[in-house]
Amino acid sequence: MKEKGLLIVLSGPSGVGKGTVRKAIFSQEDTRFEYSISMTTRNPREGEVDGVDYFFKTREEFENLIEQGKLLEYAEFVGNYYGTPVDYVRETLDSGKDVFLEIEVKGARQVREKFPEGLFIFLAPPSLSELQNRLVTRGTESDELIRGRMETARKEIEMMDLYDYIVENDHVDHACEKINSIVQAEHCRRERVQLRYKKMLEVD
Amino acid sequence: MKEKGLLIVLSGPSGVGKGTVRKAIFSQEDTRFEYSISMTTRNPREGEVDGVDYFFKTREEFENLIEQGKLLEYAEFVGNYYGTPVDYVRETLDSGKDVFLEIEVKGARQVREKFPEGLFIFLAPPSLSELQNRLVTRGTESDELIRGRMETARKEIEMMDLYDYIVENDHVDHACEKINSIVQAEHCRRERVQLRYKKMLEVD
Repeated sequence: MKEKGLLIVLSGPSGVGKGTVRKAIFSQEDTRFEYSISMTTRNPREGEVDGVDYFFKTREEFENLIEQGKLLEYAEFVGNYYGTPVDYVRETLDSGKDVFLEIEVKGARQVREKFPEGLFIFLAPPSLSELQNRLVTRGTESDELIRGRMETARKEIEMMDLYDYIVENDHVDHACEKINSIVQAEHCRRERVQLRYKKMLEVD
Repeated sequence: MKEKGLLIVLSGPSGVGKGTVRKAIFSQEDTRFEYSISMTTRNPREGEVDGVDYFFKTREEFENLIEQGKLLEYAEFVGNYYGTPVDYVRETLDSGKDVFLEIEVKGARQVREKFPEGLFIFLAPPSLSELQNRLVTRGTESDELIRGRMETARKEIEMMDLYDYIVENDHVDHACEKINSIVQAEHCRRERVQLRYKKMLEVD
């Protein structure tokens, strides 16, 4: 009768501030999510602790885990592997807790395939809205510059297809508040709550 | 390019505290919803103001409005009509503002038919969760009493079918917070935001 937790995936284009937003969420006192620590083959930076910031692994260990299907998603960046251990995610969800992942767009696509019922949040750059302002108050910037920005925006908007929610990162606090609201709202979704009530009556 | 507002419908079994929750929401300073004032043929109670608490109408006026299709929903209770004027709702939504209705379950069903895209929130009595506790700690109450409560619960759970979200009214403040979160989350839904961005690019 234990209800499963939600898998919350925060992603978005690189440089949008995913890490900052994630850290802000986990610095709140009343955060009710569990953070899934990533695994990497890159060397620890000064101050980074194994099992807190990352699980640090050798290339060989990482590749063994890939072969054993122990990674929910993984990707290689600048010669290093980054990935999400699947066992922690499954066990935490089964225990009824929400799990929070902050990962790259490519990784999010892999997770969607394995957890289609996850909650996928796209962190959007405020440049999209700024672009709108620039389009309205033309004349201050060259057409070429605007066209380039529109091309970038077009690609970012296409990336959103996979996601359930879009949160604009205009300000870290606003973004955190919206993400918290989204998770709270999802816990109130009728299918989820009604099922819990129905199960309750079956006790008889 | 103006985005339409959301139609938010708060309903639930009679006696659950819909009115109290609605008043608490509208007493918040930063409420961003417009309250749709109901129309009624009942007499004003002491202190009630026409156009603030209700639009007070004669039976004849009300029935004319029904005939003209000017009511989004209506019902008769204890010999009096209660209903929601449709023009105000449509105009406010078109202006981009969210409209909040607090209505009976029957009325909510009528609104769902006309505004399937509305946001329907069911306020659930905390007795449902209390019932669960009672079922677990049996022995303190008669089986007959428990069966009666389970029958009521079953009917309430069936009523939920129509709704998008369930909010348990265990405490007015919690219920308000959840309703605010639900509306904020709905404004972040991908389809909605992505469409706005796409329209923005069409400007070119």
